[in-house]
Amino acid sequence: MLKKLLAEFIGTFWLVFGGCGSAVLAAAFPDLGIGFVGVAMAFGLTVLTMAYAVGGISGGHFNPAVSCGLAAAGRFPLSSLIPYIITQVIAGVIAGAVLYLIASGKAGFAAGGFASNGYGEHSPGGYSMMSAFLIEALLTFMFLFIILGSTHGRVVAGFAPIAIGLGLTLIHLISIPVTNTSVNPARSTGVAFFAEGGWAPGQLWLFWLAPIIGAIIAGVVWKAIAEKD
Amino acid sequence: MLKKLLAEFIGTFWLVFGGCGSAVLAAAFPDLGIGFVGVAMAFGLTVLTMAYAVGGISGGHFNPAVSCGLAAAGRFPLSSLIPYIITQVIAGVIAGAVLYLIASGKAGFAAGGFASNGYGEHSPGGYSMMSAFLIEALLTFMFLFIILGSTHGRVVAGFAPIAIGLGLTLIHLISIPVTNTSVNPARSTGVAFFAEGGWAPGQLWLFWLAPIIGAIIAGVVWKAIAEKD
Amino acid sequence: MLKKLLAEFIGTFWLVFGGCGSAVLAAAFPDLGIGFVGVAMAFGLTVLTMAYAVGGISGGHFNPAVSCGLAAAGRFPLSSLIPYIITQVIAGVIAGAVLYLIASGKAGFAAGGFASNGYGEHSPGGYSMMSAFLIEALLTFMFLFIILGSTHGRVVAGFAPIAIGLGLTLIHLISIPVTNTSVNPARSTGVAFFAEGGWAPGQLWLFWLAPIIGAIIAGVVWKAIAEKD
Amino acid sequence: MLKKLLAEFIGTFWLVFGGCGSAVLAAAFPDLGIGFVGVAMAFGLTVLTMAYAVGGISGGHFNPAVSCGLAAAGRFPLSSLIPYIITQVIAGVIAGAVLYLIASGKAGFAAGGFASNGYGEHSPGGYSMMSAFLIEALLTFMFLFIILGSTHGRVVAGFAPIAIGLGLTLIHLISIPVTNTSVNPARSTGVAFFAEGGWAPGQLWLFWLAPIIGAIIAGVVWKAIAEKD
Repeated sequence: MLKKLLAEFIGTFWLVFGGCGSAVLAAAFPDLGIGFVGVAMAFGLTVLTMAYAVGGISGGHFNPAVSCGLAAAGRFPLSSLIPYIITQVIAGVIAGAVLYLIASGKAGFAAGGFASNGYGEHSPGGYSMMSAFLIEALLTFMFLFIILGSTHGRVVAGFAPIAIGLGLTLIHLISIPVTNTSVNPARSTGVAFFAEGGWAPGQLWLFWLAPIIGAIIAGVVWKAIAEKD
Repeated sequence: MLKKLLAEFIGTFWLVFGGCGSAVLAAAFPDLGIGFVGVAMAFGLTVLTMAYAVGGISGGHFNPAVSCGLAAAGRFPLSSLIPYIITQVIAGVIAGAVLYLIASGKAGFAAGGFASNGYGEHSPGGYSMMSAFLIEALLTFMFLFIILGSTHGRVVAGFAPIAIGLGLTLIHLISIPVTNTSVNPARSTGVAFFAEGGWAPGQLWLFWLAPIIGAIIAGVVWKAIAEKD
Repeated sequence: MLKKLLAEFIGTFWLVFGGCGSAVLAAAFPDLGIGFVGVAMAFGLTVLTMAYAVGGISGGHFNPAVSCGLAAAGRFPLSSLIPYIITQVIAGVIAGAVLYLIASGKAGFAAGGFASNGYGEHSPGGYSMMSAFLIEALLTFMFLFIILGSTHGRVVAGFAPIAIGLGLTLIHLISIPVTNTSVNPARSTGVAFFAEGGWAPGQLWLFWLAPIIGAIIAGVVWKAIAEKD
Repeated sequence: MLKKLLAEFIGTFWLVFGGCGSAVLAAAFPDLGIGFVGVAMAFGLTVLTMAYAVGGISGGHFNPAVSCGLAAAGRFPLSSLIPYIITQVIAGVIAGAVLYLIASGKAGFAAGGFASNGYGEHSPGGYSMMSAFLIEALLTFMFLFIILGSTHGRVVAGFAPIAIGLGLTLIHLISIPVTNTSVNPARSTGVAFFAEGGWAPGQLWLFWLAPIIGAIIAGVVWKAIAEKD
């Protein structure tokens, strides 16, 4: 179990450090910055790379919503749920802290939103709480469908990390303007306390609730329908 | 059969919501927007992810033209054609509606073209109806060739979703300026009724006719030549 | 043999239509255009998709330099070389013509360079003939190394189209500013006669000579060293 | 052994020529340039393509830090370490020279930083030496984790080059603004002597020390924990 938690730790650290790091350090670099496309690629590739590197050890969740959805589908033991989630959140916060340490090593550094997720006036494009909740729940639902489907015995072994990683890229290509894209409570929590202005922790509830609801529904639906033959 | 239609429903929903969603929400975001490259990636990744997730259940068409082309090639039973197409169109329209609901949760929202396909004055780059018809038929022809070829027994199993998904990305990289890229009547229909100005439904005929003609020709040609040894 | 030539025809048509089409139609679209990154992706994906679709039929060369390099490595019969090259060039020219037909369906259309390859004053970045020759020969050498290596029995079957297609993307990411990137005489020939100003056919010699020299050297070197154990 | 060194030579040459070449020639091309996203893709694809092409011969390190990390993990014989590193550095310098030769074939050419790695006032975004050291060590640590994990017997054969290559893309998406991204002493050394102003060789120590420390720690940690069952 320790080995599994270590794998979850390093994978979730990488997801938050790499994904949010690309956003904080590189997205808006003058003229040559990577923009939302680069950030979307970065988030997806953190999962693709770690799913190959340590997915075989822990299952490669790196995300409390994924752990919940897999449990709902009967693919992950309920007894492991709490240790996994605690590990993921700790890894996310440490990733946020290390990123802050590196990013602040620059004259005139300002944390700004620090890649935090938000809605209403803190949505990048000014989308309402309702839109934010809906899209986070929906995209996490689809993310779990991709995960459950591509890791099914029906699919040729080895391809799931590509489908899942690029699925996360796709999710970011759609929704960064709405919520800065979470679908992952550990990622949201990891950076929220470093954002300027202190608003981000107060909006965290949505980025726990919506993804987990979406994930659990996906797990239940998948179990009811797609698994039976 | 119900399970297959459910797989087609969710796959086509994802294609329209994800592809058109990236266009409506993220393409033209100031400074950091994903542009045509990001939209092209998004459309391709909807198919890549869903082909891995549920392709093994329904075949993963998500597109009436694909179903027609596969039927023409003798790879899909004619009796399933109508249920598949109806399901795909319903999924596309629901995806368009959910996207509209989310996108409108923003102060000052204007639907604009809402990622609709068009020609003439409604072509993004002002291309004629003739150019639009030609490129839609040609690209769907090639899309079916990619599908028929990469799912052939000759090819190592498991790679087809990569070839097909990235093939759709490629098709968008070429033709967004001409028609906003359809090659999929369900995708065109799904968003047409949400576009401002009411012009889009009147141009839908082309995005049914051209892709289906291209797909059927591809199926017939493939069957005549490539399958025989 | 006819079936093989048909596969080469459709693959080379796709390479020239898709790659050059993305450049002519979408690269410089105002604000949302795909730029060199998108064109690089498009060229690579034409090869990736067709290598999966018809690579098993013809070997998937789609390029006279590739055919020459494989022949030099002893992997392709010399007797097939001329039919392959003729087919590839015809496919390239037809692709150029169809692209011209579609692209001209726009008010105020101007062909401009029409994605032609050039050096000196016709290099996108103003690079000399020497730089152009050197980079075309070198990149084709490396392209053949990628092809010969990734299709070797040592590599797990099925991945070669990914390595080769994305290798072509990489080659474009490096060299579009120098020559608009050829490494493929059929691609250069296919569009040269449609460029405005009539300069492009006069520079074609370099885009035949340099790639073929690079490819043959790669074939010879590979055969001498890498094949023996 | 000669064959292995030749494979390392060509792979490292390609990494430096392709990655730095895309940065020098194409990153800042007016309007259509590939930016940091394109450079990140280019570096990753050099490794992906060469890992498929010659990875089966030499192991596909192309990087002194990778060789050190693999040695620390007990996956690479210490006796081969020095020959590998010397070969990689020579290949890097030759790649830098060939790139300089090609790039200078342009009226008004100025080498500028020539894609060199730097910190402090030579960091693209003005990041401190401390930030540079930390991120280089951390990212190389993660890079080795990806390599060690994805080449483990637990993972389906054939996918490692995708995970490793796209992992390098990801690393660049995060850190180009901080150090121009090294994680590879041979890459840093290969171009440092061609940068204008003569500052780059004086900062090389960091791009040897930090990556190698990060890589060795990764190797030791992996060996201690992940390998045992």
